[in-house]
Amino acid sequence: MARRTIKLTLAYDGTDFCGWQTQKQGERTVQGVLEQALSLIHGHTIKTNAAGRTDSGVHATAQVVHFHTDHETILGERFKDALNSYLPHDVRALQSEEVEESFHARFSARSRLYRYYLYFSPVGLPHFRRFCFRIRRQLNVNELNAAARTVVGVHDFTSFASAGDTSASKEREVYSSCFYPLGPFLVYEIRANAFLWKMVRSLTGTIIHLALHGGDPAGLRDILQARERSAAGPTAPARGLFLEGVCYE
Amino acid sequence: MARRTIKLTLAYDGTDFCGWQTQKQGERTVQGVLEQALSLIHGHTIKTNAAGRTDSGVHATAQVVHFHTDHETILGERFKDALNSYLPHDVRALQSEEVEESFHARFSARSRLYRYYLYFSPVGLPHFRRFCFRIRRQLNVNELNAAARTVVGVHDFTSFASAGDTSASKEREVYSSCFYPLGPFLVYEIRANAFLWKMVRSLTGTIIHLALHGGDPAGLRDILQARERSAAGPTAPARGLFLEGVCYE
Repeated sequence: MARRTIKLTLAYDGTDFCGWQTQKQGERTVQGVLEQALSLIHGHTIKTNAAGRTDSGVHATAQVVHFHTDHETILGERFKDALNSYLPHDVRALQSEEVEESFHARFSARSRLYRYYLYFSPVGLPHFRRFCFRIRRQLNVNELNAAARTVVGVHDFTSFASAGDTSASKEREVYSSCFYPLGPFLVYEIRANAFLWKMVRSLTGTIIHLALHGGDPAGLRDILQARERSAAGPTAPARGLFLEGVCYE
Repeated sequence: MARRTIKLTLAYDGTDFCGWQTQKQGERTVQGVLEQALSLIHGHTIKTNAAGRTDSGVHATAQVVHFHTDHETILGERFKDALNSYLPHDVRALQSEEVEESFHARFSARSRLYRYYLYFSPVGLPHFRRFCFRIRRQLNVNELNAAARTVVGVHDFTSFASAGDTSASKEREVYSSCFYPLGPFLVYEIRANAFLWKMVRSLTGTIIHLALHGGDPAGLRDILQARERSAAGPTAPARGLFLEGVCYE
């Protein structure tokens, strides 16, 4: 077989990873363990690209990755099984398939879906501690949603970008942004064409901060229009955040 | 204040514990970390008793424990907060209250409720790996329930007791036993006056084994009547099991 492009869907527990991207040597990253497994399968180095470069501690249930392979025998849909026998238990390949050569996990993506899991409790629950953020007292979902929906549309999200974000344009298009209960959790779900660095966590943290301190939900519009990170509230912790889907054409 | 009896409700992630009970020195147990925290609060050794002596890797969302205190100032309902500042993050005190001197977490308990969490997937999901047991292919819930309900009532559960169980009588009364879907999980829920050692896990393992291998669900009755551990199937892994409630008068 000639050179082929493989699209891979991954789930991972981000708790014990320094995020997706390999930056410093010796750090355990998802990209690092994935490329190590692929390199073992191929007998030479394989490089990967992901749709979302998730931060340290952020999880994924459906990260999308692509790589090029010159492997002679493994069919596209079998890379999943080959990888799962090499990957550690906190990363699993859920799906793999051969796609067109031009496919790029990051640049071909039309939108990303993130969910942030919250729960209300005066005491932290041991079984939730890796995967969600606890708020001590109940918040009003209607108020949270009044704030959340103000970011829908095309906006300059400078106020919610980390100082380290290097994007030329801070404009992103948010397709949906809402809170809803899901079992014992309250979920904040946001879909956009793309996100700035730490944008979901600073949006989540700011909306919660407003609600906790009795702020007017419409205040989020003023924060957005300020185009200054200092106008926004705190960044919600990484552990509640999941990359849950990437849409292509 | 004179000697008081305190009833405590605990949640814990059993993954990193060698079970409830302190047996060998150097083992990390829930009882060990709890008694260490209580001893720090009191300045002397405090002993505890639990309703269910959960095994290594088994979780609890509502374990009940009692201890006697001669502490001069801490009110019953404040032990919860005092403990949470000393306990590690995989154990939390959810509730505490002063109860009658005669209360005994184990001997006063009328029934215990356990839930076992299963999910069906060809691939293990990283976020579920500490807290549930994966079955590769979908099972029929009606068939599982046909087997599960045969254990309701008073029975000799020798077939489902671990060889190490030292109970004089192997008779227990099961009040309810059923499977039902819960979000992405299939839950096996069983309530009984008390349980033999590893009884829930060997029941769960045997019912699943029957279903996976096309056995007649009525076969569970024969296994029960055999009164021999060798008649039953495998023991389901600890990680799916949660002690979720203890009922008193």
